[in-house]
Amino acid sequence: MKAHVYVTLKSTVLDPQGQTIGNALRKNQYHGVTDVRQGKYFVLTLQDSLDAADAAAEVERIARDILTNPVIEEFTYRLED
Amino acid sequence: MKAHVYVTLKSTVLDPQGQTIGNALRKNQYHGVTDVRQGKYFVLTLQDSLDAADAAAEVERIARDILTNPVIEEFTYRLED
Repeated sequence: MKAHVYVTLKSTVLDPQGQTIGNALRKNQYHGVTDVRQGKYFVLTLQDSLDAADAAAEVERIARDILTNPVIEEFTYRLED
Repeated sequence: MKAHVYVTLKSTVLDPQGQTIGNALRKNQYHGVTDVRQGKYFVLTLQDSLDAADAAAEVERIARDILTNPVIEEFTYRLED
């Protein structure tokens, strides 16, 4: 089973890296984009012995305790068989 | 409309950053995870004037030309109203 974890800055936190990418896009004639936010993306491969509930609990603990800085970031995740 | 773009290393490319995270997880007693791959995640806000086909074309061009290094990375994306 795989878990896809998406970590993003909270919407109230400035994202200068995303702004820089957005400015670069506009300078390169990509005018369809009004805003860019950058985040992190993790693909965790889980042991086959875990059932869906255990996997969700383990992924949530990992995302909350290790992959995310709770002061400025938040996460979502998705499990995939 | 928003576009979620996920950039990952090709599966044939080593990911030392992901391996380091995986090792740290095991050292911290998270034994449910056998492998970690790290990628990048972008949320692009698109102009409302774009229809779905134009948006998909614009996002594909941006992901291919700007956000991804085609030698070692690949991307997927998802549009959201």
